[in-house]
Amino acid sequence: LSGPGDPAAPIPSEPTPPLPGRPVPTVFFASDYGLHDEFVGVVHAVLQRRVPGLRVVDLVHDLAPFDVRMAAFLLARAVVHLGPGTVLAVVDPGVGGPRRGVALSVAGAGPSWFVGPDNGLLVAAAERAGGIAAAFELTPPHRAGSAGPVSFDGRDLFAPVVAALCGGTPVERLGGRIDPASLIRVAPPVDERRGSPDGGTRLRAEVLWVDRFGNLKLASSAEAAGEGAAPLGRRVEGRVERGSPGTFDLRRVRAFDDLTGDELGLMADADGHLAVVGRQRSAAAALGIDVGDIIELSW
Amino acid sequence: LSGPGDPAAPIPSEPTPPLPGRPVPTVFFASDYGLHDEFVGVVHAVLQRRVPGLRVVDLVHDLAPFDVRMAAFLLARAVVHLGPGTVLAVVDPGVGGPRRGVALSVAGAGPSWFVGPDNGLLVAAAERAGGIAAAFELTPPHRAGSAGPVSFDGRDLFAPVVAALCGGTPVERLGGRIDPASLIRVAPPVDERRGSPDGGTRLRAEVLWVDRFGNLKLASSAEAAGEGAAPLGRRVEGRVERGSPGTFDLRRVRAFDDLTGDELGLMADADGHLAVVGRQRSAAAALGIDVGDIIELSW
Amino acid sequence: LSGPGDPAAPIPSEPTPPLPGRPVPTVFFASDYGLHDEFVGVVHAVLQRRVPGLRVVDLVHDLAPFDVRMAAFLLARAVVHLGPGTVLAVVDPGVGGPRRGVALSVAGAGPSWFVGPDNGLLVAAAERAGGIAAAFELTPPHRAGSAGPVSFDGRDLFAPVVAALCGGTPVERLGGRIDPASLIRVAPPVDERRGSPDGGTRLRAEVLWVDRFGNLKLASSAEAAGEGAAPLGRRVEGRVERGSPGTFDLRRVRAFDDLTGDELGLMADADGHLAVVGRQRSAAAALGIDVGDIIELSW
Repeated sequence: LSGPGDPAAPIPSEPTPPLPGRPVPTVFFASDYGLHDEFVGVVHAVLQRRVPGLRVVDLVHDLAPFDVRMAAFLLARAVVHLGPGTVLAVVDPGVGGPRRGVALSVAGAGPSWFVGPDNGLLVAAAERAGGIAAAFELTPPHRAGSAGPVSFDGRDLFAPVVAALCGGTPVERLGGRIDPASLIRVAPPVDERRGSPDGGTRLRAEVLWVDRFGNLKLASSAEAAGEGAAPLGRRVEGRVERGSPGTFDLRRVRAFDDLTGDELGLMADADGHLAVVGRQRSAAAALGIDVGDIIELSW
Repeated sequence: LSGPGDPAAPIPSEPTPPLPGRPVPTVFFASDYGLHDEFVGVVHAVLQRRVPGLRVVDLVHDLAPFDVRMAAFLLARAVVHLGPGTVLAVVDPGVGGPRRGVALSVAGAGPSWFVGPDNGLLVAAAERAGGIAAAFELTPPHRAGSAGPVSFDGRDLFAPVVAALCGGTPVERLGGRIDPASLIRVAPPVDERRGSPDGGTRLRAEVLWVDRFGNLKLASSAEAAGEGAAPLGRRVEGRVERGSPGTFDLRRVRAFDDLTGDELGLMADADGHLAVVGRQRSAAAALGIDVGDIIELSW
Repeated sequence: LSGPGDPAAPIPSEPTPPLPGRPVPTVFFASDYGLHDEFVGVVHAVLQRRVPGLRVVDLVHDLAPFDVRMAAFLLARAVVHLGPGTVLAVVDPGVGGPRRGVALSVAGAGPSWFVGPDNGLLVAAAERAGGIAAAFELTPPHRAGSAGPVSFDGRDLFAPVVAALCGGTPVERLGGRIDPASLIRVAPPVDERRGSPDGGTRLRAEVLWVDRFGNLKLASSAEAAGEGAAPLGRRVEGRVERGSPGTFDLRRVRAFDDLTGDELGLMADADGHLAVVGRQRSAAAALGIDVGDIIELSW
């Protein structure tokens, strides 16, 4: 494996419009930048300036600041809906420090490049999208001798690299090949299931996400948890193991609409995860449960 | 009228790029999905994947969760500014239940299709855009025998239908024709005006919207309320009829800038509604009035 | 200098698609409209309807309502990242009043037109983008005798003007030439530096922005403040001069990652400003400092 790419060959900054007849490049952009500042807009502008006509699909920008792990889980579940293009993802508490910037090449029907920090954000999504065919460590402009800014690599490193890849620059000009096995990974979510002596099932699961409506997405796959084990209508007992202590009752349902009044339910959500939900009310608020909590369910 | 479309003919999922020379399809997307999650981004990705090059105009995604009625009023007032294209609107508390998904065909200079749940969200906007020429009940993939997700029809049913319509799929392949008179409608807003014995005017109006600046949009048309009846400068007495009790004074003005200090005003807003406003301050916060409240004004 | 443009020649409203072979026009859109309402979406729709295929880059819409001055500083620092196109910026507390709407022509590698209210919002950005070559006062439709709305010039005046410029309408049809020296300017930010008797440095600086992560952007240029004067590792004493009283300690660092635990730092941010920052924590919350406060730093 070679080291970082040639610092004498900086990322091209001239506009490189797509060749006629080639499809318009699409960038899927996810970050914890939020929309309070101009960060997202400036990254769009940098991309547009370098590859006029490029399209950006903003996946999400309200990722919790600095929470690489939950962002990685989100990317991994969203990636199956993305078509051809490049994923640009930035949750980057270590920006300006020694962490590497990387571009991951993926062979599949979806995105073919994943660009961002090497902190665990990209790996699970890239693997789910088809597997990492090759990985490259990007040459940060500010390591190449310049005294430029070190706190906005989304604008100064990752967006230029994405634009260069969209414009056809060979990746070897942007960085050096590294061993995919050297990529940082996040700790997997808590997700355990075991039978109980009385023939029932006990599930320990981490809360991976609380959505706008207050639904709690669990780490457990609904399929693995089994329709049979918790058939529709079955009562499910819940207990908070990590978080504000408490117990609660759920009913196994197929859709929000199967619940009545203040009842809470356990259902398969749109990503195939088990989720704790209410009917036009927030399960998170009702139970005082938050991202990262661990709950135990038994039926 | 026929029933739902042929379940054996699923929504086309192959990319169908616009034909050369045909205008690029435009989708106007409104929802209560918010921007906290990846919901909006994934719908964009699904649309882009199926019709590469399609454009999406995000009208609004911060609609109050589950509030179909206020969302319907918003769509109806925004629709006059939209050009040719397709409206994709999702406020859908009944997702996964028996409510129908529909596509409404409209003849006018603006959008020609309105796609979303049959819960009252679309009808007023479609009528204002030119009238409903035909209505179709969409065939949900999850009713066609599959065990797929039932909680994200924006991604799994409506976006694919919008993409198919944009790509030229005949609507008959997507659903069965239904009677437009069978479509669900929301209750009209409270908006009453009557003369008082002393020659004055009394108005009862529902608050349809509170905007970012705290302006209260009333159900009453400014034109119908009459410039003559409440000429500029006229003092207007207000009373909260439904909401936190209270009375207040307004001055009839033409623009925010006509107000001074803490004064509150009554003016014609940009949609032609009467609105209660402040000058660089929130009338909603000053008066403790919220969406759905009813106020009485007299002058 | 002539007066406003010919009111008998309204802004063209017919769609004017870009000529074949001409680049697709790009609009950089910044406002205090927020994303709670449909304001931003409707402006997009108006632009798209008049110039099908036009691209909009949303720079930022969460600017503090009515705060023209801080918005002007943001535009001036973001503008260097924008490519060719038109800036549409709206923070407009005086809408409907006597303030002028303007279009500023700029010669440079970035945006060539800046369109918005004449209240100080545009001038610094236009000057930084290459200088104001010519200025035009726009003819508001509602001054041209119509009784139309006066509270949404972003939709009714500025967007149509931007679309007309993108579509090739000569600016003389849109307004009359005015003296750039007559344009309103915002008061410059507080930014003073002086040596102290003991060889140290004392800096008085206004807080221009608090970003999503709680970093405090100061008016002072990091370069002007001098690496030599505050070398990396140097301890810096801080005092709030305007705002909630308090003193604090900072360490001069190069990157967030150089800080440990609860320590706060002073670093050059991505725009070349001095910034008070934490490591994965909000300096603003830790210090109780907000936009517009003035702090004094000495080392």
